[in-house]
Amino acid sequence: MSAPDWIAVDWGTSHLRVWGLQGDRVLRQAASDQGMGQLAREGFEPALLALVADWLSDAQVTPVLVCGMAGSRQGWVEAPYRAIPCPPLGGALVQAPCRDLRLSVHVVPGLKQHRPADVIRGEETQIAGFLAQNPGWDGVLCLPGTHSKWVHVSAGEVVSFQTFLTGEMFALLSERSVLRHSVSGWDDTGFTEGVAQGMERPERLLARLFSIRAEGLLQARDPASGRARLSGLLIGAELAAAKPYWLGQRVAMIGAAPLAQHYAQALGTLSVPVTCHDATEMTLAGLAAARALLPQTERPCVN
Amino acid sequence: MSAPDWIAVDWGTSHLRVWGLQGDRVLRQAASDQGMGQLAREGFEPALLALVADWLSDAQVTPVLVCGMAGSRQGWVEAPYRAIPCPPLGGALVQAPCRDLRLSVHVVPGLKQHRPADVIRGEETQIAGFLAQNPGWDGVLCLPGTHSKWVHVSAGEVVSFQTFLTGEMFALLSERSVLRHSVSGWDDTGFTEGVAQGMERPERLLARLFSIRAEGLLQARDPASGRARLSGLLIGAELAAAKPYWLGQRVAMIGAAPLAQHYAQALGTLSVPVTCHDATEMTLAGLAAARALLPQTERPCVN
Repeated sequence: MSAPDWIAVDWGTSHLRVWGLQGDRVLRQAASDQGMGQLAREGFEPALLALVADWLSDAQVTPVLVCGMAGSRQGWVEAPYRAIPCPPLGGALVQAPCRDLRLSVHVVPGLKQHRPADVIRGEETQIAGFLAQNPGWDGVLCLPGTHSKWVHVSAGEVVSFQTFLTGEMFALLSERSVLRHSVSGWDDTGFTEGVAQGMERPERLLARLFSIRAEGLLQARDPASGRARLSGLLIGAELAAAKPYWLGQRVAMIGAAPLAQHYAQALGTLSVPVTCHDATEMTLAGLAAARALLPQTERPCVN
Repeated sequence: MSAPDWIAVDWGTSHLRVWGLQGDRVLRQAASDQGMGQLAREGFEPALLALVADWLSDAQVTPVLVCGMAGSRQGWVEAPYRAIPCPPLGGALVQAPCRDLRLSVHVVPGLKQHRPADVIRGEETQIAGFLAQNPGWDGVLCLPGTHSKWVHVSAGEVVSFQTFLTGEMFALLSERSVLRHSVSGWDDTGFTEGVAQGMERPERLLARLFSIRAEGLLQARDPASGRARLSGLLIGAELAAAKPYWLGQRVAMIGAAPLAQHYAQALGTLSVPVTCHDATEMTLAGLAAARALLPQTERPCVN
């Protein structure tokens, strides 16, 4: 198999995913649990090489494009947030220090918003990938995840965004709170019910959450229904607060199943038109767009 | 020192606290981390004896009154919930199996509400203690804690109640979520600001939470302010949802510093009159009232 002419890297807090590409064609891919959260600065290059060393050619320098938490202050190299409004990509990429001369690593900066204070790191690349595939697109993006993001894009620029702690809250509550005894599995009816309750009375969230436990105890309610309702309550509360984003808009969702499907299902109950786009595909398209920003000398002429 | 004529036990999920009393006078007390959560059924008696064995007399059976999670299905013995409306105590106490003939252990049952589904286990004893000290009292009780409770009491009966996951949510978010990097210490201004924001727009909770992290990153905001604001946002959201309980009422708070003080401070900003009562004192008064329910043969005549 021929050597990739560039490498795409999505480096999150808890995971590391790499792809070896020729143009936009994926030749190889690999992943590990060496996320930013468990690496000291000097640990990044070895963690990357552990996955890609075999892909590298001694005859050329392979460009590596990285998005995600590897660019945070505690990461490989800090790629400072760019202030919105601005295009999702476009500022200078930040070069990461490397000992291995076969590698040239650049990190994509995140975005920041001053009021209300908010930050994005990683999703800017997915947004850039989406815009590369949908030039001239204006509207609202929803990116579900640990920290879900609602993003308003206009004229190629990120105009405003809002982060919700929904995914992390779901993980904490379903795995580490008293609710863990009452939630397991999935049940669509429970989800729809939760979304409706969360949307209708989002201010009652803290009370509704405990009722999942109480219903488990008193009514021997199915834990599949409990877990789906927990997810629905949280997503419903998020949708209630994100209403200024989606009301009267078409929404493009960038995510992965099953979470993105759940968001789409919830938005469907509100008659919001939604198109769904694969998060990994958008990440790769965004990193390809980032690669095009590199000085020409960094791009070996393989094609 | 003379032997206690009875023993009071508060047995929570994560702690065990015991008091040796003569009448209502505390002679001795002890505590351990042998909470219900880490004990199998056969572990309860040894965990209790580890604290009180030296207090017991061979010449008499010492009654032991227990409240809390030791009465749950996973506890020492299940003391089934009593359905409200009912007095906080009054149903039969449940005897726990004991090998040591010097002990006679009884567990106080919790309370249940069918719609909305909700349960109390432990706080019913504090409520009973409060009513024993304030006979004829009608009104609203607030019991802050891991799972805070709002309770409407009328004519000596618990009429309705509502549990909020506020305290557990605060612990999870401040210790285990991404916010842990941005919260440490305490700052009263941050708390008041959080309460106001949580009260005013409780539906924005999931977004406001992430802004604590973003403000830490972008504005180098003091983590003491972050932690106080986190607490304020959650308590403010609880107060918004608990409004039907406190609006136009005087509230009796049963809790421990500093949490009870924070709730009192938050209610103060709403001009709600609050009286504060010590949780341990109410627990002991409630267990004393439970002791009075025992058949006379169970009560050695020491006094």
